[in-house]
Amino acid sequence: MRTKIYFDHSATTPVDPEVLKAMMPYLKDKFGNASSAHSFGQEAMKGVDSAREAIANFLGCEPKELIFTSGATESDNIVIQGVIKATKEKFPERKLHIITSAIEHPAILEPCREMEKAGVLVTYLPVTEKGLVRVGDVEKAITDDTVSISIMYVNNEVGTIQPIAEIGGIVKAVKDGRQKAGNKLPLIFHTDAVQAVNYCNCQVNELGIDLMSISGHKIYGPKGIGALYVRGGTLIKSIQLGGHQERGIRAGTLNTIGIIGLGKAVELVNRKQSSSAELRRIKELRDKLVEGVLKTIPESQVNGDLEKRVPSNTHFSFLNAEGESILLMLDLEGIAVSTGSACASGSLAPSHVLLAMGVPKEVAHGSLRVTLGRFTKEKDIYKFLKILPPIIKKLREMSPIK
Amino acid sequence: MRTKIYFDHSATTPVDPEVLKAMMPYLKDKFGNASSAHSFGQEAMKGVDSAREAIANFLGCEPKELIFTSGATESDNIVIQGVIKATKEKFPERKLHIITSAIEHPAILEPCREMEKAGVLVTYLPVTEKGLVRVGDVEKAITDDTVSISIMYVNNEVGTIQPIAEIGGIVKAVKDGRQKAGNKLPLIFHTDAVQAVNYCNCQVNELGIDLMSISGHKIYGPKGIGALYVRGGTLIKSIQLGGHQERGIRAGTLNTIGIIGLGKAVELVNRKQSSSAELRRIKELRDKLVEGVLKTIPESQVNGDLEKRVPSNTHFSFLNAEGESILLMLDLEGIAVSTGSACASGSLAPSHVLLAMGVPKEVAHGSLRVTLGRFTKEKDIYKFLKILPPIIKKLREMSPIK
Repeated sequence: MRTKIYFDHSATTPVDPEVLKAMMPYLKDKFGNASSAHSFGQEAMKGVDSAREAIANFLGCEPKELIFTSGATESDNIVIQGVIKATKEKFPERKLHIITSAIEHPAILEPCREMEKAGVLVTYLPVTEKGLVRVGDVEKAITDDTVSISIMYVNNEVGTIQPIAEIGGIVKAVKDGRQKAGNKLPLIFHTDAVQAVNYCNCQVNELGIDLMSISGHKIYGPKGIGALYVRGGTLIKSIQLGGHQERGIRAGTLNTIGIIGLGKAVELVNRKQSSSAELRRIKELRDKLVEGVLKTIPESQVNGDLEKRVPSNTHFSFLNAEGESILLMLDLEGIAVSTGSACASGSLAPSHVLLAMGVPKEVAHGSLRVTLGRFTKEKDIYKFLKILPPIIKKLREMSPIK
Repeated sequence: MRTKIYFDHSATTPVDPEVLKAMMPYLKDKFGNASSAHSFGQEAMKGVDSAREAIANFLGCEPKELIFTSGATESDNIVIQGVIKATKEKFPERKLHIITSAIEHPAILEPCREMEKAGVLVTYLPVTEKGLVRVGDVEKAITDDTVSISIMYVNNEVGTIQPIAEIGGIVKAVKDGRQKAGNKLPLIFHTDAVQAVNYCNCQVNELGIDLMSISGHKIYGPKGIGALYVRGGTLIKSIQLGGHQERGIRAGTLNTIGIIGLGKAVELVNRKQSSSAELRRIKELRDKLVEGVLKTIPESQVNGDLEKRVPSNTHFSFLNAEGESILLMLDLEGIAVSTGSACASGSLAPSHVLLAMGVPKEVAHGSLRVTLGRFTKEKDIYKFLKILPPIIKKLREMSPIK
């Protein structure tokens, strides 16, 4: 491990030692089921309550507006499926319409396709060649039947920051208009903020967000835990049924260990990550890396907007060098990167995000996502810049296309 | 903690120190996303594969027949909802019928009620006054439209062991008959084995099981992790959509920490718990506790079959003493018990399990579940037998009903 370099923080992050320390008592003595009435249960619930408060504080919401889930995939599924389920029950006669973007995570896109099978109309908004949703496109797409809009905060592949607050403003105006016009259909604005929590303002009221998905393992917390912010009064139903946990929106024994970890992870983001010094540090390292790559490797490019982008992310394409091969050769040198999202790993199809941005297939195939993090050091950047160019050169020499 | 006694092992168990030890590397250095192609990912997947093999070995199935979930509630939901979803798609013209029992966990009963809303017929089988499903009732309930049968292996409140192998035999005969008769509808036999893993034979082929739910935190593993055994070829669909993890049946980043913990927990059950010496030890402690209670407390009874029962469980009713009050007074003395399942905690309604057994409401209200475990000592039993009788006496003196 000592000599290895991890540049895949968008796939997952190491658990921060402070997070692990907070989790340990719950892995040992504080093992009670938070739903139990006795002191073991109360002790566990006390921990859960503190974590819920820490996260609520970070999002600027009420603690009771937070639902703990097994991760962002579950949160996203509750959003897409649970809103339609609840709306169909309340407005059985209405046509329903969802707006999302072509560059969302599969945890949004797949449930949307499922809803299409069930008769729901779904609009998949295009993006600019820089990987950004146009606010005007959202506005134009909204109809009287639109019930939910789901636009990710930060894209998981190219790291672009979407105009969430602006969309939130439009949604608010449409809601007001509906009230005046007597259209009772709710309009619910969701954002998958998994890749945003580390770097962006997540205050739900400032953004005009009704639902927000977050994940533990992308923010130096454990895997297997996530949360869903649900604005009070939002029309939504559970998809996982059973006990009465989490306001009836999510049945199942509370994952105390994960919840404690998530709470501490969010607290640390607030304390460490989002300081301007740390944001600047990561941005400077990333910019150094980008500059070095573009300068030393011909026919290389950065995909996605350079400004509206989280400081940790960069995403390259190298002509005539296969992304998967670059990844494997870097791995042999002890450097971990990815070609796209880990969730689509194993698939040889070019990334749906790059295709939506209009990146040609042959360019998309030579893509590499390099994502830095809290523990990235300057020397890691130098090592990468030393090792990558000869790898690309070698692969190009081997390539049948010259 | 030192002086506290934990008698609520059916609600949750402490994490075994050996389980925690196995998890630690994955909470530290081995943090990769198991879907990542680089060595961090491969290292995580290697751990996942070992855990999957350990569990497959315990169930006598193929590793690829195991799907990791966030817990038994999710597993149960996939079973009830996922089988109906897949069957409806394949046999859109057929009526569908589910058989279950009146004493199942809410994670089965609630999804069943949801399926009823969607037009599925559900039979809730009654149980004997000892809390046992009658095999003959299952046989009689099966029709040509029956697609799934879900009977829990061990009841979570009264600890009764259901006749799973016998039901498995009947299901097999019906399957054979359907094949001959040209009825193409699948018949899928599921058991929620959450409370059985510690004490019962869980070899799926010996039992004739097609789907089996298990949970980490009931077997000295962590919370937030479970598994679902899915016999190869079973007609079932995902309810949580997204990435391609777990054969497409369960999307979402693999919870490596939880999976490693579950694998080790199952391995320990195999090595420690299921030894005849340990089973005998727990049974002797439980029997001593039961004998002591019945001898020293008048108008007390044990609910549920005395023989067909896991060795860890006992469940009392005390006339004219409120269960919740007994629980709280025991808690003040440092003894943790429960009145029923933790998942239904907070509800004042009498247990659906006891009502199905024909226990009168006033008797049900005076109920106490006492469940022993791996770390229970003989002196804990003596302390309980010393503390409980004066509590019951006091509560009865306070009771308006004499």
